[in-house]
Amino acid sequence: MGDLPHPDLRPLASTTCVVTGGLGFIGSNLTRRLVEAGATVRVVDALVPTHGGDRHNLEGVDADVLVADLGDPAVAEALDGVDVVFNVAGQVSHVASMTEPLRDLDLNVRSHLAFLESVRRVAPGVTVVQTSTRQVYGRPDHTPVDERHPARPVDVNGIDKLACEQLHLLYGSVHGLRVTALRLTNVYGPRQSLAHDDLGFLPVFVRRALEGGTITLYGDGSQRRDCLHVDDVCRGLARAATTEAAAGEVVNLGSDQDHTLAEIAALLVEAAGGAASVTTVPWPPERQRIDIGDFRTDATKARERLGWQPCVPLAEGLASTIDFYRSDPWYLSST
Amino acid sequence: MGDLPHPDLRPLASTTCVVTGGLGFIGSNLTRRLVEAGATVRVVDALVPTHGGDRHNLEGVDADVLVADLGDPAVAEALDGVDVVFNVAGQVSHVASMTEPLRDLDLNVRSHLAFLESVRRVAPGVTVVQTSTRQVYGRPDHTPVDERHPARPVDVNGIDKLACEQLHLLYGSVHGLRVTALRLTNVYGPRQSLAHDDLGFLPVFVRRALEGGTITLYGDGSQRRDCLHVDDVCRGLARAATTEAAAGEVVNLGSDQDHTLAEIAALLVEAAGGAASVTTVPWPPERQRIDIGDFRTDATKARERLGWQPCVPLAEGLASTIDFYRSDPWYLSST
Repeated sequence: MGDLPHPDLRPLASTTCVVTGGLGFIGSNLTRRLVEAGATVRVVDALVPTHGGDRHNLEGVDADVLVADLGDPAVAEALDGVDVVFNVAGQVSHVASMTEPLRDLDLNVRSHLAFLESVRRVAPGVTVVQTSTRQVYGRPDHTPVDERHPARPVDVNGIDKLACEQLHLLYGSVHGLRVTALRLTNVYGPRQSLAHDDLGFLPVFVRRALEGGTITLYGDGSQRRDCLHVDDVCRGLARAATTEAAAGEVVNLGSDQDHTLAEIAALLVEAAGGAASVTTVPWPPERQRIDIGDFRTDATKARERLGWQPCVPLAEGLASTIDFYRSDPWYLSST
Repeated sequence: MGDLPHPDLRPLASTTCVVTGGLGFIGSNLTRRLVEAGATVRVVDALVPTHGGDRHNLEGVDADVLVADLGDPAVAEALDGVDVVFNVAGQVSHVASMTEPLRDLDLNVRSHLAFLESVRRVAPGVTVVQTSTRQVYGRPDHTPVDERHPARPVDVNGIDKLACEQLHLLYGSVHGLRVTALRLTNVYGPRQSLAHDDLGFLPVFVRRALEGGTITLYGDGSQRRDCLHVDDVCRGLARAATTEAAAGEVVNLGSDQDHTLAEIAALLVEAAGGAASVTTVPWPPERQRIDIGDFRTDATKARERLGWQPCVPLAEGLASTIDFYRSDPWYLSST
């Protein structure tokens, strides 16, 4: 986004915002954009190991950071006088949700419910933007997928994220919070932890491309996904917080442009200079049984309600992402 | 059902069953029917205060009773060698779920997830019948409501019960359990706790009718509901456990006959001898904001898949229910 605040962030210039998960991938990018725009930002992050949160993500950024679980009483204090809550915290690994289901429930539902209780008590009427996920749809009946598509999650993570989203909207309708839930597609860009294999396929592909290794595709790599640059996500979060027509709504944030995983891998190999390679292997059973097939987002509602559409073309976004990590190799070594 | 086992229960004659919530309303009725049919029954119940579970419900019944939370290791032991799990335990109060949301989450989701982990480990491939609720639909777009109607719960209890149902079905599709989830409409009959005001409108109405008090209707009492006698529910649970076409399915259990709350109240007053009266009051706000309007079940799928339909006409069922409580006034005094 360069040095000047993006127009979508400007309406938040004089606000006080809480960003949960603010030391993580999306949260830290949002925090940086908000601070650049002139907002006062209070970051809350539990720094759960392996979830991608790290103080490195906000080095040099003028934001208060509170390391605590969302349900912690200290978090309630941080909500005092706040204008907007961006609730971005979450456990994102589908595989981990199947091997440690109670942990996923605690992190993706229980903590958020305790947080919502704090929000309604300390900051009644506040604006809350929650990041949900396209995973709540499960295996789509058809693509592109709009918000009326049935929600039929196929793993514990999807079930928990759906319950979390529903709790947010309930606290909007019953307790008077001004809530928008954004269902995000696969997100990539700077400040994503690259050290783990279960935070989505994009950081794994990026790491392999950077290291000149082998990008492994399951099956024939023909599964289709739409991807979104984190800058586009930050713009969408800001629009949701500042657009009246977003109140009480579930809105998809995704791209009308979808690609096969093989195409995405090839773009990354090219962006990284061609040293990496791509191979295919049979589907591991624990992945295949929670795979959702092809996915493409219908983002019509985001265009109509939020006045939002993605701005970063995939090839360009992947190339600048590779450049970012080349300039800060910390992300390759951190754990 | 009289003294002879109902034909729907007979296929379970030589099975070993676990009934969770077996000291409660539906669970104790089911346990009695199963024992009558010749099944070996292990009851698990946490005896959570005010939830309706009590040892009185199974007095004189030959069933092992384990008082423990569903996630307790002792419960895992009770699953060894079992043929069918009837998972009937749950917190049913909508109002309590709004005032103590974390408690509802713990009882209706977290405990069940821990239980499912035990089931898949100790009893892989076992048949599990879970009782869900029509509350997961929220305010219906239209009536009657079939299983394709969107699930849009309007309170914490509905959100939690939906997540619980989805987790059960997921453990079916991913971990090989043979799962059926039954979405129950309002259930009445013997052995329901009458001492609390938040276990549904039916036990409150029954108590007032028995005591010759005043049945209070919110608004004008014109809200419509379909009601199901607990004997019909027990038959549906047995059909779900023994019918191949039920595996992996969500099935409504309800009645095609709906009535206004005023009509139901009048039937109860008449059944109890006419001493009670009926009055109307404006909606209390904490009830109105989670009210779902009219509801009527479309039970076509239960007929087609389970070969089940309700057998107990409402007037007859309410009259025999009043007779039951007259013969055992313990239910009016217990807490």
